[in-house]
Amino acid sequence: MTNVEALKELLKIPSVSAHHQAIQDCAEKVTEFLQEAGFHVQIIPTEGHPVVFGEKKGISDKTLIFYDHYDVQPPDPLDQWVTPPFEPDVRDNRLYARGVADNKGNIMARLAAVESFDRLPITIKFIIEGEEEIGSPSLQKFVETHKSLLKADACIWEAGYKDEAGRPTMCLGAKGLCYVQLRAHGSKRDLHSAFAVIVENPAWRLIRALTTLKDSRDHILIEGFYQDVEPPTAEERAIVDSIPYDGDKARAMLGVDHFLNDMSDEEAVYHLLYGPSCNICGILSGYTGQGSKTVLPADAMAKIDFRLVPRQDPQKIFQLLTLHLEKHGFSDIDTELMGPLWPAKTPVTAEIVSVTEQSMRAVYENPPVIYPTMSGSGPMWLFTDVLGIPTVSIGVGDAESRTHSPNESISLSDYEEGINVITEIIKRM
Amino acid sequence: MTNVEALKELLKIPSVSAHHQAIQDCAEKVTEFLQEAGFHVQIIPTEGHPVVFGEKKGISDKTLIFYDHYDVQPPDPLDQWVTPPFEPDVRDNRLYARGVADNKGNIMARLAAVESFDRLPITIKFIIEGEEEIGSPSLQKFVETHKSLLKADACIWEAGYKDEAGRPTMCLGAKGLCYVQLRAHGSKRDLHSAFAVIVENPAWRLIRALTTLKDSRDHILIEGFYQDVEPPTAEERAIVDSIPYDGDKARAMLGVDHFLNDMSDEEAVYHLLYGPSCNICGILSGYTGQGSKTVLPADAMAKIDFRLVPRQDPQKIFQLLTLHLEKHGFSDIDTELMGPLWPAKTPVTAEIVSVTEQSMRAVYENPPVIYPTMSGSGPMWLFTDVLGIPTVSIGVGDAESRTHSPNESISLSDYEEGINVITEIIKRM
Repeated sequence: MTNVEALKELLKIPSVSAHHQAIQDCAEKVTEFLQEAGFHVQIIPTEGHPVVFGEKKGISDKTLIFYDHYDVQPPDPLDQWVTPPFEPDVRDNRLYARGVADNKGNIMARLAAVESFDRLPITIKFIIEGEEEIGSPSLQKFVETHKSLLKADACIWEAGYKDEAGRPTMCLGAKGLCYVQLRAHGSKRDLHSAFAVIVENPAWRLIRALTTLKDSRDHILIEGFYQDVEPPTAEERAIVDSIPYDGDKARAMLGVDHFLNDMSDEEAVYHLLYGPSCNICGILSGYTGQGSKTVLPADAMAKIDFRLVPRQDPQKIFQLLTLHLEKHGFSDIDTELMGPLWPAKTPVTAEIVSVTEQSMRAVYENPPVIYPTMSGSGPMWLFTDVLGIPTVSIGVGDAESRTHSPNESISLSDYEEGINVITEIIKRM
Repeated sequence: MTNVEALKELLKIPSVSAHHQAIQDCAEKVTEFLQEAGFHVQIIPTEGHPVVFGEKKGISDKTLIFYDHYDVQPPDPLDQWVTPPFEPDVRDNRLYARGVADNKGNIMARLAAVESFDRLPITIKFIIEGEEEIGSPSLQKFVETHKSLLKADACIWEAGYKDEAGRPTMCLGAKGLCYVQLRAHGSKRDLHSAFAVIVENPAWRLIRALTTLKDSRDHILIEGFYQDVEPPTAEERAIVDSIPYDGDKARAMLGVDHFLNDMSDEEAVYHLLYGPSCNICGILSGYTGQGSKTVLPADAMAKIDFRLVPRQDPQKIFQLLTLHLEKHGFSDIDTELMGPLWPAKTPVTAEIVSVTEQSMRAVYENPPVIYPTMSGSGPMWLFTDVLGIPTVSIGVGDAESRTHSPNESISLSDYEEGINVITEIIKRM
């Protein structure tokens, strides 16, 4: 089986962590591929989904660890996929499937790079977890329990993308995440909407509570929300100012004709890296099928996420949210914190940063763009802060990869280059 | 087949008008039952679902018309039904099925009453439509086209309920209904929620728009909304004040421990009859399954209904809503008006009111309670205002009937009494 064929095998496994689907199957398939490449592999149980850990000794003890995840986002809305999400399909030199950019393509590209060496110059470790897309709830305990196993001199994080202009990027940090489910309750059952004149509607209650969280310019109104925000250093700010960003291309990719609050391209870059957010991921109440149904719903639910920046603490933000709801008279609304993630940042001066930059320059036509942090979230803080390993994130995606959306894909040329960059990094370390 | 067996046959047909389901089947079954009772029947096509019209001549030309509907509400949430909605089940002398109280039980009780006469003293007509639960969109044109066919001296409307204390009720009016679907649009597709810092979220936009419609005390803020409201006459107000109402029982039935805004029982009665409302029937955006998914939704949808009181006009209210959204900067939100209904009212002094009252006194243990109007809506205005027929609504339901909710039911004793009341009315007319 070629490496790309193996990748397709992996993509066929619908390992949706939010639905606890095909998790064991996927962990076993990853294990099989690592073993075939000469790794000593363990499937290590956690309180949630198992972690696949692999190690292959090199000539030197110097160690590079790859952090990846074998789980994927739910594929819905299914009707928007051109081909089914778990039936990998190649069209115009792009490979389409849920998880191909985030993050199964990177797992297999890294494995291909390792396999290109007859004798590995350094020791390589893989930690591949199965809960990244649900906020990595078991990884903190895992990392704290297996510190010596995970020891390494540097870490390559799970994913990276070419930007709208085709420039490869490298990220040195991640945002934190505070994901909260809110639920408002009314009657014990759905009622005829004629009773709306005398019975409170939990959907009204929930949306009233939600609208207290932000003003119309998206400034978050939770008291203390911005208190711990650490602004970027002058050094970071200089790097940010040098980031090339084509707003027109970005807007076209995102399918919008203007940014939020008509912000400029420069503001957009700054917000993507240093702006915390409060977003409605989902909301549901009552009858939502076709036609009309006159109902007074029994309950209403919303899922919201806060993206956090260094030094915001998701547990503290959750407490502030709870206090905010109480203060505004919404203490009857249930709140549930799901999989908190802390923000992370690796110093621009770390050795792995220059090694990776040189490797990228050696492979790609365009010079790499360095992002001191990134717009997405992950458990990178466990590596940078808990394990103390300098970490950079690169990968085989591009600006058209549609991560978390229907028709996720990667370019097969990017995939080849991604293999070569990892090979260069291993040589140079 | 006994009458109750025939009713169960009718209840097995899942004639959900919102889904255009089993409509023709149900119209044909109703036709069959009317024909077996000696009616001359026509299934009359409309632009939507067909109307079943039946007529049976009596000794006198005096004519009583029954307005009913063979369609039902959608049965969801399905998992809350003790037995499946379209498999009628008797438990503790109650018959459970979707549509048994609203309105198939009344169709069959009325038919049983007519069948109890060897020679009918008066002429009986049935008009049984198939779109009541979606707002009767075709009935107005039907009524205007078939005025002579529908000529009658009085009309018995589709439904009625014993109250919490077991007193039979009679209603002389109905609220109007303005049902609107709203839709806000963001990106062309769902995005990773990391982009929430730079791309507008249509769910935020929709809930912000919705919260401008009412203040926190449920006063509707649409300019001109209350302008055409006609307060009850002194005569009506006296009847309303005499309505017995057990707030504790009502709250227990509704599954709440207090009324909206902690209103008193008297205020509750007044609001049920004379209070317009603005209610969220449903809202949906983004990911609403289990677990967490970090998504920035592409669109957001809400269904709202306004219950209207005499002289509010649903088409005017829809225009005022559209103007309100424009005025508040939400003209990008799509609005769609579905099946408007006007409010209706029959004078307390009409002959059919006293005939029905006397018939109810002759059958029931408790004296009837007269409601000058009711909390629900329907196309009654087409009969009272367009055809000019005095109309009263009575029926076989009770306060536990859970109309529009899971586990809809009627008491089989109420069903027998309901047959007897119609028999008495036919005798007395």
